[in-house]
Amino acid sequence: MSDLKDSVGEDAGREMSWNAWGDPSRARTLPIAVRALLPALLGRVPRPAPAPRIDEVRVAPVGLDDAAAIALREIVGAEAVRTDADARLRHAGGRSTPDLLRRRLAEQTVPDAVLLPADHAQVSEVLRVAAAHDLAVIPFGGGTSVVGGLDPERGGHRAVVSLDLRRLSGLVGLDEVSGEAELLAGTRGPDAERLLAERGFELGHYPQSFRYATIGGFAAARSSGQNSAGYGRFDTMVTGLRVATPTGELDLGRAPGSAAGPDLMRLLLGSEGALGVITHVRVRVHPLPRERVVEAWSFPDFATGADALRRVVQHGGGPTVIRLSDEAETGVSLAQVGRIGRALAKGASAVTVFEGDDAEERRSRTASILAAAGGSSSGPDAAGDWAETRFDGPYLRDALLDAGVFCETLETATTWTNLNRLRAAVTDALRSGLAAAGAKSFVMCHVSHVYPTGASLYFTVLAGIKSDPLAVWEAVKHRAGDAIVAAGGTITHHHAIGRDHAPWLVDEIGETGIRILRAVKRELDPQGIMNPGALIPFEAGGAQDD
Amino acid sequence: MSDLKDSVGEDAGREMSWNAWGDPSRARTLPIAVRALLPALLGRVPRPAPAPRIDEVRVAPVGLDDAAAIALREIVGAEAVRTDADARLRHAGGRSTPDLLRRRLAEQTVPDAVLLPADHAQVSEVLRVAAAHDLAVIPFGGGTSVVGGLDPERGGHRAVVSLDLRRLSGLVGLDEVSGEAELLAGTRGPDAERLLAERGFELGHYPQSFRYATIGGFAAARSSGQNSAGYGRFDTMVTGLRVATPTGELDLGRAPGSAAGPDLMRLLLGSEGALGVITHVRVRVHPLPRERVVEAWSFPDFATGADALRRVVQHGGGPTVIRLSDEAETGVSLAQVGRIGRALAKGASAVTVFEGDDAEERRSRTASILAAAGGSSSGPDAAGDWAETRFDGPYLRDALLDAGVFCETLETATTWTNLNRLRAAVTDALRSGLAAAGAKSFVMCHVSHVYPTGASLYFTVLAGIKSDPLAVWEAVKHRAGDAIVAAGGTITHHHAIGRDHAPWLVDEIGETGIRILRAVKRELDPQGIMNPGALIPFEAGGAQDD
Repeated sequence: MSDLKDSVGEDAGREMSWNAWGDPSRARTLPIAVRALLPALLGRVPRPAPAPRIDEVRVAPVGLDDAAAIALREIVGAEAVRTDADARLRHAGGRSTPDLLRRRLAEQTVPDAVLLPADHAQVSEVLRVAAAHDLAVIPFGGGTSVVGGLDPERGGHRAVVSLDLRRLSGLVGLDEVSGEAELLAGTRGPDAERLLAERGFELGHYPQSFRYATIGGFAAARSSGQNSAGYGRFDTMVTGLRVATPTGELDLGRAPGSAAGPDLMRLLLGSEGALGVITHVRVRVHPLPRERVVEAWSFPDFATGADALRRVVQHGGGPTVIRLSDEAETGVSLAQVGRIGRALAKGASAVTVFEGDDAEERRSRTASILAAAGGSSSGPDAAGDWAETRFDGPYLRDALLDAGVFCETLETATTWTNLNRLRAAVTDALRSGLAAAGAKSFVMCHVSHVYPTGASLYFTVLAGIKSDPLAVWEAVKHRAGDAIVAAGGTITHHHAIGRDHAPWLVDEIGETGIRILRAVKRELDPQGIMNPGALIPFEAGGAQDD
Repeated sequence: MSDLKDSVGEDAGREMSWNAWGDPSRARTLPIAVRALLPALLGRVPRPAPAPRIDEVRVAPVGLDDAAAIALREIVGAEAVRTDADARLRHAGGRSTPDLLRRRLAEQTVPDAVLLPADHAQVSEVLRVAAAHDLAVIPFGGGTSVVGGLDPERGGHRAVVSLDLRRLSGLVGLDEVSGEAELLAGTRGPDAERLLAERGFELGHYPQSFRYATIGGFAAARSSGQNSAGYGRFDTMVTGLRVATPTGELDLGRAPGSAAGPDLMRLLLGSEGALGVITHVRVRVHPLPRERVVEAWSFPDFATGADALRRVVQHGGGPTVIRLSDEAETGVSLAQVGRIGRALAKGASAVTVFEGDDAEERRSRTASILAAAGGSSSGPDAAGDWAETRFDGPYLRDALLDAGVFCETLETATTWTNLNRLRAAVTDALRSGLAAAGAKSFVMCHVSHVYPTGASLYFTVLAGIKSDPLAVWEAVKHRAGDAIVAAGGTITHHHAIGRDHAPWLVDEIGETGIRILRAVKRELDPQGIMNPGALIPFEAGGAQDD
C-alpha cells in the first residue's frame, strides 16, 4: 500500500453539526492562499450576520396529535419519538448551500417529530400508522442530501415526521465466496467499511458524503463514489433490496443476471424515499486491495484531458479512480495545498489511482494511453494531495460561507461527443446568471466519473453575492438547469432529484415517464405520504406546499 | 485474428422455417456418434408421425372485423395487413420445443392477422387503433422466444394481431467518439453487426438466437449472449430506448450515469411487449477487435471448474467468453464432433475466448488463474470446435425431434455459493419428473454467463418420451420450475418470462412486485391489449384464455 492518507472513518460515529457540514471539531479555516485569491476573483463581499445558536431558533409548535403520537410510541418506544426542537432542527433538511443558509435564519421549518425505528418491522408499522393518521414521512439516512430531498414537506397532510434510520445499522451477513454482503440501510459509510474490513472485504464506495451518508441513502439516491471507475456506481453494486412501503413490502434481487421481467430493483434504486423505505441492502464486495498506486497527470487543457480519459475508459486501462480538473479547479486546488505558484503553468490536472494485485500493471497501461493522448505525468505527489483532502471540500464551503462567499456545486453527465459543449453551456449560464444579479463568480469544473459512452461534469461555483443569496441562487440554479437540459445533459449525475431538480424530471423521462412514476406511487403509497414533492413533482392542482 | 470460424451472418436475411429452427437449407442430420449413443441413453423411442405441410394445417377463420381491418390498412398499407394462413402460421408462436411440437398438429392456433408497420409512427398508430377496436397485439421480432412470449393469446379481446417489426430495420446513427449506435428494433443480429462492421464497430451480442433474433427482442427479453463476460448482458449495453405504448411514447436514456430518479429504461428492458413496443434502441458499441485468442480447458469435475470460473470473474482475468460444460455435456459435445473416444476421460471442459488488442495478455492472466484452480489447458482446438458449431444447437434439436427424441433447454442463475446445490436440485427434478412419466432421460448442464457474485446454469434435457410429449413436458417443466425456486435460483437467466414462466414471477418479485407491474400496465395499456398473459400473469377472475 502506498502512504495515501485518506482518513477514512476518522469521524465515524460523530453527530453531524446541526447547521454545517460534518464534525464541528474538524471545521476548517480558509487557507491563506485562498483567502488572498478571493477578493481578486469575487470582489469584496460583506461578512454575513452571525447565525443563531440552535436554542435561539424559533420553530412551529409540534403538529402531531395525541392519537398519532401514542400510536407511534407504541411501535418504536417513547424515547424513539422525539419532538424536542433540537432533534427537529437536526432533521430540518440536508446539506445543500441553500440548506445551510436556511440554517442561519431566525425561524426555521422543521418536521413535527423525529422517529427512530429499530428494524424493518418497526419501519413497516410506522408507515402503516402514518398512513392511518395522515402523516407525511421523510426517510432520513445520513442527512447529506444536497437536492432538497429532506425538506420537511407536509404535502397537504396533517403533520410530517422524519424517519431517521440510524438504528438500522450493521452487517447482517457476508457470503465470502460469492462476494456479497447484506447491510442494514442506516449503516453509515465508515461503519460499513469497518465491518467489512474486519472480514477482509471492502465495498469501495467513497462519495464525498461518505463519512455521514448511509447505505440506504446511497441506494435511494443512486450515489456514485470516487472509485466508480474501478468498482462502479452504487446502483451497479447493489444485488438485493428490502423495502417497506405503506401497502406492502418488497424483497428484490433473487439472483445475479436474472431476466425475470423488468429489474424492479432499479425502480427502487433512485426512488428517494418517495415510494417506500429501503431497510436492507445487499451489495457486491471485494477482498480488501493489497496494493495501491497513484499518479497525477497534467494536460495542456481540459478538452485534451477529457479526450485522454475517454481513451482510457474505452480501451480498458483499468484505473480505480480517474478524475480531471479543469484549469480553474487545478489552480484553486494547488492554492489550497499552498502550491499556487505552480498553478498558473499547469493547464488541466488529472489524478489516477489503481488498487489491487495488478495495480502497477494497470497504472502502466493507463499511463501509456494518457501519455499518447497528450498528458504528462506529474508523479504521485499531487495525487496524494487530492486523496488527503478529498473529504474536506464541504468543510471548506462552511469556511467560505462564514466569510460571506457563496459556494455551491452542481453536476450533470453526457456523451463524450457532447462533453465540451455542455461544459461551456453550464459555465456560461452560471456566470451570466450571477453577473445578472451583480455578483462576480468563479466557476470550476471536473470530470470524476467516466463511462464508455460519456462522463460526468461537476461544477463548483464561488460567487460574491451581496444580498439575499437564497433568492439569487434559486434564479441562477434555474438558469443552469435549463442550460443543462438545452445542451443535452442530465439534470443530475449523482446528486439525485429531490425537490430541487423535480421541475426538470419531465425533461429526463417525458410525460409518459412521469405517469409511470405516479402510477407506481399511487399503487404503493395511495395517500402520497412518502416524501411528498421529492422525486415526483406535485400534480398541478394537487397537493401544495403547506 | 485466429481462424475461429463462426459463420456469423451466414443465413442472414433468410426466412425462418415455419415449423423448425432457422434456415431449411441448413437443417442437420444427427451425427453418427450421437445416433449410436441415443438408444443406450434413452431406450428405443417410436418415430413420430409425419408432420403436416403448411398448407395442410387447419386454422380458425380470420376474426378481424371489417372496420378494424380497414383502419389498420389505412395506417400500414393494404399489403402490410396479412390475413393468409401462411403468414398467420409463421407467427403462431416461438421456437420452444412445445412450440415445435404444436407446429406438428393438424389444427393450430394462430393470430387473426399479421401487421408489418414501417416505422415508429405507424407502430404508435397501430396501438391506438388496436385499443379502439379491442384487438390484442403480440409484438413479434425474430420469432425466437422459447418461453411462450409469442402465443397468439386473445386475452378476452375481440381478435389478436401479430405486430411483426421486420420493416423497422437499420442503423439510424453511430457516434464513433462516444461508441454509441442507434438501431431500429426490428434489425436482426447479423444485419446489425454487418452495418456496424462497415463502420469498424461491433455490438458483440451473440446469443444462440443471434441469426434470427432482433435488437428490440434482445432488449424486450433481457437477452444475454456468448460474449457476456467481455461485453456484458444486452440490458447493460443499452443506453437508450424509444417505446410506443397505447397511451403515449417513451424516449429514455438521456445520459450515461444519470441519477435522475429510477432508471425507467430498466422497466422497459424485460417488458416483453406487455407494456409497449420498443422501436429504437441505442447501444454501446466498440471498435471491431483485431485480435482473438481461444483456449480450451479441462477440469476433474464440474464443481472444480465452476470454482475456477468464479476466481476468474472475481479476480479480473478478462475473458470475452468463458463457459464450462459439465461431464455429461462434455461427453456429448465431443461425440458431436466425432471425438467420443476422448470424452470419457475428460471430466468437465471449459472454453475461453479473448478479443481485443491485449487478448494474449488476458489469456495468460486467465490461464494462470484456471491452472491454479485445478484446470489443464487443452489448447485452442476444442475451443474452435465449440465456436464452429455454436449456433447449430437448435438445428440439432429438430433432428432429434424428427427421430422421436424429446430435447429441450431451461436455465437459471444463482450465487456462486449456491451453484452446485441448485444444479443438483434441477437435475434431480428433471430426471425424476421424466422417470415418473416412464421416460429415460439424459441431463446436461453448462455455465455460460458469469458475474462477480454468481453464474447461470443452462440445462439441456434429452428424453425418450413414449407418448404425448407436450403433456409430459408441461408436468416436468412445472416440477423443474418449482425446484429452481425452492433451491434459490431465478426462474430465468436469459430466456425471459413469457407465458411459460409467468406462474413463477411472484416468487421473483413478490405480490408487491406484481402489483407494481400491473399498475404500470394499467397506466400505459389500460385495456390490457399488449401481449396479454405474457410477463404479467392474468389476475384470478380476470381475463382468461379464449
